[in-house]
Parts: sequence; C-alpha cells; structure tokens
Amino acid sequence: MSEVKVGIIGLGNMGTSHANQIFKGNVQGAVLTAVCDERPERVDWAYETFGSDVQVFSSLDDFFDNENIDAVIIATPHYDHPKLAIKAFESGLHVLSEKPAGVYTKNVRQMNEAAEKSGKVFSMMFNQRTNPLYQKVRELISSGELGEIKRTNWIITNWYRSQSYYDSGGWRATWAGEGGGVMINQSPHQLDLWQWTTGLMPTRVRAFSGFGKYHDIEVEDDVTAYVEYENGATGLFVTSTGEAPGTNRFEVAGDRGKLVVEDNKLTFWRLRQSEREFNREYKGGFGEPECWKIDIPVHGKSTEHIGILRNWVDAILHGADLLAPGEEGIKSLAISNAVYLSSWTDDWVDMPIDEDLYYDKLQEKIKESKYEKPEVEQVTLDVSGTH
Amino acid sequence: MSEVKVGIIGLGNMGTSHANQIFKGNVQGAVLTAVCDERPERVDWAYETFGSDVQVFSSLDDFFDNENIDAVIIATPHYDHPKLAIKAFESGLHVLSEKPAGVYTKNVRQMNEAAEKSGKVFSMMFNQRTNPLYQKVRELISSGELGEIKRTNWIITNWYRSQSYYDSGGWRATWAGEGGGVMINQSPHQLDLWQWTTGLMPTRVRAFSGFGKYHDIEVEDDVTAYVEYENGATGLFVTSTGEAPGTNRFEVAGDRGKLVVEDNKLTFWRLRQSEREFNREYKGGFGEPECWKIDIPVHGKSTEHIGILRNWVDAILHGADLLAPGEEGIKSLAISNAVYLSSWTDDWVDMPIDEDLYYDKLQEKIKESKYEKPEVEQVTLDVSGTH
Repeated sequence: MSEVKVGIIGLGNMGTSHANQIFKGNVQGAVLTAVCDERPERVDWAYETFGSDVQVFSSLDDFFDNENIDAVIIATPHYDHPKLAIKAFESGLHVLSEKPAGVYTKNVRQMNEAAEKSGKVFSMMFNQRTNPLYQKVRELISSGELGEIKRTNWIITNWYRSQSYYDSGGWRATWAGEGGGVMINQSPHQLDLWQWTTGLMPTRVRAFSGFGKYHDIEVEDDVTAYVEYENGATGLFVTSTGEAPGTNRFEVAGDRGKLVVEDNKLTFWRLRQSEREFNREYKGGFGEPECWKIDIPVHGKSTEHIGILRNWVDAILHGADLLAPGEEGIKSLAISNAVYLSSWTDDWVDMPIDEDLYYDKLQEKIKESKYEKPEVEQVTLDVSGTH
Repeated sequence: MSEVKVGIIGLGNMGTSHANQIFKGNVQGAVLTAVCDERPERVDWAYETFGSDVQVFSSLDDFFDNENIDAVIIATPHYDHPKLAIKAFESGLHVLSEKPAGVYTKNVRQMNEAAEKSGKVFSMMFNQRTNPLYQKVRELISSGELGEIKRTNWIITNWYRSQSYYDSGGWRATWAGEGGGVMINQSPHQLDLWQWTTGLMPTRVRAFSGFGKYHDIEVEDDVTAYVEYENGATGLFVTSTGEAPGTNRFEVAGDRGKLVVEDNKLTFWRLRQSEREFNREYKGGFGEPECWKIDIPVHGKSTEHIGILRNWVDAILHGADLLAPGEEGIKSLAISNAVYLSSWTDDWVDMPIDEDLYYDKLQEKIKESKYEKPEVEQVTLDVSGTH
C-alpha cells in the first residue's frame, strides 16, 4: 500500500476539520476518498467543498459497502464510536476514533476485542499526547527521575463554555445525546494524560459533580474527583466549564521532588536526595532535602490533531508505533465512568468499575431525562484553537 | 495603664520566642514580668536568660496568684489553651493564645463565652493574618471585585517535617498530646485564612486523611478535604507534611475572574464582564469574557508573630481593633474537627459539627492509642523562619 484511502464518518466540528486537512494534502500518504453524514446540509457542504474527488454518503450502509476505503475516521457523537469502530474492524478497515472511546466501558471493551481480532491499526484522537510537555512529564516519571509518586493534582478548569455553546447542537450535554458533560466531552484529554503520564490508574474514586450548575443543561459542568492509587498515592482532578478564565495546572509530587505543568512550561523541583531516605536519616528537627528548581527544556511543538492523523497513517503504511493506541481509550473512560458512578451514588467506587451497574444507571438517566433543548439551529462551529 | 505586664505560660518553641521578643523590648508598651513552665530545664533557662527582672514559675497556681501580670500569652500544647484562657479571663487578665484555639470546639466555645463575660482583650496568634497578600485577597473579595465565589482551592503541602521533628517532643503527633497532626499543628493558619479571606464557612465536608502515612506517628500527615458552601461554591484544601518541596498555592475563582496567591505574589485574572452575565448574553458558541491578567500591588510586609503581639498590646492599651480576635479561632478549628470526623467516619459531615460526637470520637482515639514514642530527648527547636 502506498497510500491510505481514508473515509470519514461524521462531518461535525471535528470530522469537518479532519476532512479538510486530508483533502488539502496535509497528511502525507493519506487521501480522502469518502465522507458520510446523514444531515443534508453537511452532505451539500461536502459536495460543494470536495467536488467529484470524494464520494459523499448519507447512509452508513452505503459508506461501508463501498470498496474505496482502507481506513475510517469516526467523528460522530460519542455513543456511536464503539459501534462504528466494530463495524469498521469487521469490514477490514483501520480505525481512528475521536475521543472519548465511547460513553460506557462495556461496549468499548467489545470494540477493543474487535480491534484485536482484526489486527488492523487502531488509534484514538488523543491529540494532546503530541504535546512535548506531557511527553516529557511521562518520560521524567517513567525514567524514575521523580521517584515514587505521592500525589497527582490536576486543576483543569479552563474549559469555559457559554450557554450558546450548549445550545449549538441538540445532542450536546444530554444523557441521551452525549452521555455526560465536561467529563465526557471536554476532559477526556486530561483524563488520558493523567494516567498516561503517570502510569497510574486509580484503585478507587470519590467524586462530586454539579449537574447543570452553571448552565441550562442536565449533565455535569463541574467536577471534583478524589482518587487513590495502589501505591498509596492520592490524586485530584478538578474540572469545570463554568469558570473563566480557568486554570490548567498539573502537579505531580514524588519522592524526588515535584513536577508542575502550567502556562506551557514544565518545572521540576528536584531533590538531591530521596525524601524517604532524608526522612529516615535527618536528625535536625526542622529541615528538608536540598531542592533545585529546574526549568525543564522541552523541544518541538505540539502537532495536535494532524500529528495523530499522520502517526496513524504512518502506522498503517510503515508500521510506526502508535502514540495513542485505540485500546488505551478505555482507561480514561473507565475513570470518567467511575466519577459518574461515585457522584450518582454519593459513595466510593472501586476500580475496575461494575460496568453493568454503570450502564444501568446511565440508562436510568436517559429514561428519566425531562430535558428538552430550546429550539436551536444546529451549527457546525469553527474549532480552530480548541481541542 | 501605660504598659502591659505580660506573663507567658509555656516556654516551648513559640513561648520562648515570644518571651525573648518582649524581654528585648521589641513590643512597645509590653514588659515581660512572668513566665511559667513545669519543666526544670526551661525554668533554669528562664532564670539564666532573664535574671531577676522576670518572675519564673513552675506552678500554674503560683503564676496566676501573682499580682504582677495584666495579660497572658498561652503557648502550651494545644489541649490546654481553652482551660488556661478561661482561668486567665476569670483572673481578669487579657489573653493571647497560640493557635489552634484548642483541640475540640466544645471547650473552645466555653473559652469564647468566658472571654465575652470578662470583657478582656482576647487575641489568637494567627500571625499569617499580618501578611499583606492575604489581607489584599480578603479586601478584593469583600469589596466585590472578585464577584460571587465559585471555588476555593488551597494546596498547602509545604509543611514538610522529617521523623526527627516528630521525635523532638513526646507530646507531638499523638492523640493524647496534640489531638492530631498536620490539621491541628501546621495548617491552622491556612484554615484560618481560608475562611477569613473568603468570608465563607463550609456547610459540609468530605475529607480523606492518611494517618501515619509518611511518618512513624499515629495522627494524620496527609489530608485532602472537599467542602461545599452555602452559595453552591465548592472548595478543596490539600495539606501534608510528607512532601518536599511542597506547594503553597491558593486559588479563588469567582464570577469576575480568579485570584491566585503563589510565590508571594497575588495575581488577579479580572473579567471585564460578569461571567454569569456573559453566559446568558453571548451567542457565539466558543468564546469567553475578556480577561485582564493583573499583578496586584501589595504593600508592606508580613509582621508575623511580633505584629500580632504588638496589635494585642495596642488593643489593650489604646483600644486598637484586633487583627485576629480570639473568638474567631473556633472557625478554623470547627473546619479541622469536621475534617477529622469525616475521615474517621468515611462520610459527609454537616457543619456546624456535632461537637459531642467529635469529642467522643477523639476520646476513643486517645483511649485506643497504642502509640509509644521511641525514647527521645525533648528539645526546644529554633523556630526562626517557621510559623
């Protein structure tokens, strides 16, 4: 194979952006051959924009029946990701799915099984893994520089959204349409990086969510999650779409100091001696280990969505290692599911979660939903500069 | 009265420091006339240091019986603060108590009643209230600049203590001796500032504590507390004595932006428009209110312990307003008590707390304590540069 024929399902905000990138030739080795969207206005837009070079479908069956695709980008609402990925794997296609992996881990697990069975290349649009800052955090932790982790603390409240954002699509911020709010739509990137950089998955979760706290929506727009890890470390994850200007500050404390990512900088306060060792050996009462504040050099730039697109195509064509293997999408989703379960039950949730319980609770939410969106025009928003 | 004759009870780390300051004439209008400590080595130290100018007592009864004091500084272990303050008020003396106000609110309430009945000047050693940074935070909130508060988030993990610190006194870090760990010894300052600057007391608390997590002690050395306020805002308070170098970062998000105190700087991200108003009026989907990052000018310096000493003496002599009225000590202690109760019961705690329940649980802890300190020499540590 010298080039990958790519089809895209879903021409919403993200799918439209990916389609444009590939169509313009910005992803070497990839050619856009087909798009699919059931909405007439998006079909019209695709015809107008791509002309006869790209097949435009409004039916999924027709899209999957056509022979002219090797690989599929799934950019539909969240619920459909696993179902469509499974269909794609069964059709022998490579898959790149938008985040989150899905809404509940039960069918994401099935998706992962289908991926494994197919042997196809499966990636997830965790574009923030292309950010060299977080790659460096991961490297400093996995190489042992930070030592055993004691605490993680991510304040990621800079996902500000106004009511008009929520009103821009009927599916947005509903249990039936999205399956959640800030945890399922905005924060999956950080939920992914939280476990990817540290290599730690929580063993239990206690979370507190505000549902429709700052907006006229039924899902959560404000979350505080406390977690515990197997090694005894604890963690916090705080997110909201109701604060402006918000904060994005990720701190990881370890036995050899602490790392902080904030304002696009990575700072390492490095202890010359292990704290645990100092604690045992020091006899002076007040005092602490010598500490060096280090501005960690970070090279390269965040290649974002196009970086993931290129990596996926490179993996298909040349067997490159995936930066964001699709199978890993279940990790951040499992944390997210646990946060909902804990908030709903007002109790601890052990991980791995009870997948059936989560699924059932979510169905209840959908069933009990009395939420009716005000009459709004569905619009495709320009996502330049967003995630 | 032209000068205040001050007696000091307890010549441990803090009492020794206060005694030296007053003896050296650093607190105008105050003269050190008496000190009291039951430990022979501290009595010897006092004789050697102060000579015949200061009466040295090893018995509390003798100390209170002497006519040569107008005012008392209480710098004993925490448990004794309320009892001694009540005795002092009943003896017609003004009182300055070291923090915390006590260990449980039940007898702190009695102390406050005795203070009110006496009409004497009662202050608490919340020396960090003298820090102009926090005074400015308080002013920006009370004046309405920040708008309605949405979230408070204090990471105060820079209370590093090594095992040798805990081993420096048999009473340290025991239920019977201190009644707690980082919440009762190191964090009372921030617990005070947390509610003093924001004007908000939690309505309920859910906390998670590690007991003896980083040290060979029976009390907590690691705490994460989540709180909710009456206006719907939420808050976090994270503290530890097991992390180096630790963090001291206080963030308050409000309707008009956010304040952050870190690295001895106060930054105000100020929205030109109320976020709540923007949320209702903006129609553009993605977008947020215009925000100005402002380095808030902060004048003056933190006068710390001596500032509180001087203010207390000034209040006694000239009726100055107290920066840290003693009666307010119960507020931070009540939060602290709630954090313990929540951690022990692994459940929510509504505020005001059930004072009897807390007292009973604490007695259980004391009773069940199997903790025996290793044989250590009790030492008086130099507290210069600590709090």
